[in-house]
Order: sequence, then C-alpha cells, then structure tokens
Amino acid sequence: MAGFLRLGLLYKITSAENHKRGYLAGIVYADSRAMLQDRVTALRTANIYERQSYRHIIGLPVIGASGSDGITAETSFLVARIARGGQTDLFATGVYLDKLRDEAGELRFVERLVVCDSSQFDTLLAIPL
Amino acid sequence: MAGFLRLGLLYKITSAENHKRGYLAGIVYADSRAMLQDRVTALRTANIYERQSYRHIIGLPVIGASGSDGITAETSFLVARIARGGQTDLFATGVYLDKLRDEAGELRFVERLVVCDSSQFDTLLAIPL
Amino acid sequence: MAGFLRLGLLYKITSAENHKRGYLAGIVYADSRAMLQDRVTALRTANIYERQSYRHIIGLPVIGASGSDGITAETSFLVARIARGGQTDLFATGVYLDKLRDEAGELRFVERLVVCDSSQFDTLLAIPL
Repeated sequence: MAGFLRLGLLYKITSAENHKRGYLAGIVYADSRAMLQDRVTALRTANIYERQSYRHIIGLPVIGASGSDGITAETSFLVARIARGGQTDLFATGVYLDKLRDEAGELRFVERLVVCDSSQFDTLLAIPL
Repeated sequence: MAGFLRLGLLYKITSAENHKRGYLAGIVYADSRAMLQDRVTALRTANIYERQSYRHIIGLPVIGASGSDGITAETSFLVARIARGGQTDLFATGVYLDKLRDEAGELRFVERLVVCDSSQFDTLLAIPL
Repeated sequence: MAGFLRLGLLYKITSAENHKRGYLAGIVYADSRAMLQDRVTALRTANIYERQSYRHIIGLPVIGASGSDGITAETSFLVARIARGGQTDLFATGVYLDKLRDEAGELRFVERLVVCDSSQFDTLLAIPL
C-alpha cells in the first residue's frame, strides 16, 4: 500500500473500453496525495471486516523510449481474489500505463493509469489495482 | 503484436505432451517473417469482430548459460481471457523456450518455442501466445 | 526442481493466516538439504502417476534494504493447475519472503518462507510452491 503514496501526481483506474474510446472519466480518479491517502484510509478502516484477500501478480514491464515526456512503462497485471473459505478466482486483469521521471538518478512516478480489461467492476472498489 | 515480427527465424506453438514426446509438428509453425505476418493479418482482419480480449502475464525469465548456441531463456506465461460480458478465466499457461543471439550488443530472437501446458486448444487459435 | 536444492538453510510453507498470527508451525518445514531432497524424491517417485501438472508464474520481486541481516526479497507467485483433461484452474497464490546473503558477489538463499494466501491445502502437498 505504502508504494501508492509515493505516486506523485495522478492515479486513475479505467476500463479498456473507456480507454479505447478516449473517455477521461475513470472509476477512480486521484490527482493528489490527499486523494490517494483517502482511498488508503478507506481501505484500512471502512473495510476492516473485509473477508477476502487479494494477490497482485505483476508481469515484466515493457519500458518505452525516454523522451522529453520522460519514461513510459507498460506492465500487465493480474489480481486473484482469495475468499475467506479459501477458494481462489481471477478478480481482474489489465495493464499499468505509467509515466516516470528521472530526478537526479531516481525514478519517480508521475502518472499511473490502470486500464482494466473487463468493464465489470465490484461496486465497492476500495482496493488499489 | 509488433514484438512478434521482430522474431527472426522460428516461431512454434506446441503442447507439453507433444514436446515431451519429441514430436516436431506443432499447432502453429512459422519459420519466416512472412508466415508470422500472415498470422498477424489474420488477427487484425478476420477476427475483427472477436468479442473477447486476452491478457498475457509474463513471469521472470530464467536465463541459461550462453554457449556457442547463444543464449537460452525459459519464461513462464499465463493468458487470461476476458469475455465481452466481463467474465475472466484462465485461457492458457505454458513456457517460452527461447534462443537469442547477441548481435553487436543487441539481443535478437532466433527461435521461440511456445510449449502450452494443456493439450486442449481452441480450434481458432489466431492469437499469438 | 533443482533450484530448490540450492536453497541453503530453511524452507517453509505456511498460510497467510498462520503467518499473521505468528504461528511457527507450517505445512512443510525443511531446515536441511536432506529434508528438501526427501521432498524432491517423493515428488519424483510416489507421485509418478500424478495426472495433473502445475505452472508457476513468478511476479516482479521487491528487494528490501540490505542490512546486517542480508538482503530481503518479497515476490508474489501464482500456481495454475492443469488437469489431464486440459482444464486449467488457479491452484494457489501467495508470496515468497526470502532472505539472501551476498557471498563473494554471488547471492545465495538463506531462507524461503512461502506464505500461501489460502488456508485450504491439498492433503498431499508434495509439489514445492
């Protein structure tokens, strides 16, 4: 979780269909540290009785050419959901479209756009993807 | 997709069972750029109305010793299929057995053998694995 | 499989629930090369008629700060099970909590704790996770 707070500017979740059509409005939209903090707090308090857990599997990133816009990276991900009873299923898949900046030799996130392959979402999407 | 066209010589898909038995004939066999191009064109035109999408998750590669045969790499993969309705399931798993060559400091694919764990295949396997 | 024998000292499998509660007893506990060898032999002989196969997908590792305790690494994993008939399902997910040591420029495993997300386990867990 802490990793998400290190994100600098923009964190969005959207679906592949919305992304393809150029819709800007996503399912989650956070352009400040405070908004991300809010999501994390929601996760830690309101959802304290959540009965399932999640496991992220992050694939190999494909690093894009570094231009004046900085560095881009495309990284596929998969999230498995483990029900309290132990049953495991595929919860979500998609791709991170990241923009990073080299600040004195250290890479920092500028933007993370999470494009989910499915348009179906749980109504209570508190977990970060 | 573009990445596949950069493959130099040989691209094959087979099953673990066929591979173990030493059968050379695979499900897909392409030993030229033209044959790969054909597969890509099929994917872009004939299957334009395809209602599902696919997500590849590529695991950490295990790099083999580099000898006179060049460099070998074994990389596990998983493909999830996302139905138009949004349901996600495991479509395929397997391993890439790759051969690469160092050409003036740049690694180039010489061969990619895709060994699928399951012997069940969709009759219309147009997507590259 | 061979990779597991290179593990130096301690190999344990436990569940997320046990791990969170601080229980030391795991599902598999091996603190010597001989014990690991035993597990491998069981896999190669007793389970020779096993009808399913497994595929490990290893995510990107998160490397921890290297202190006097050596290097730590957290790596998510997913195991798919492929039934003889070809059907593929999610068998297990979890995280490797590894400790490594730098011995003259070569990294060696000191400990691997396998924390499975689910508490459900097959009664015959002979495959390494």
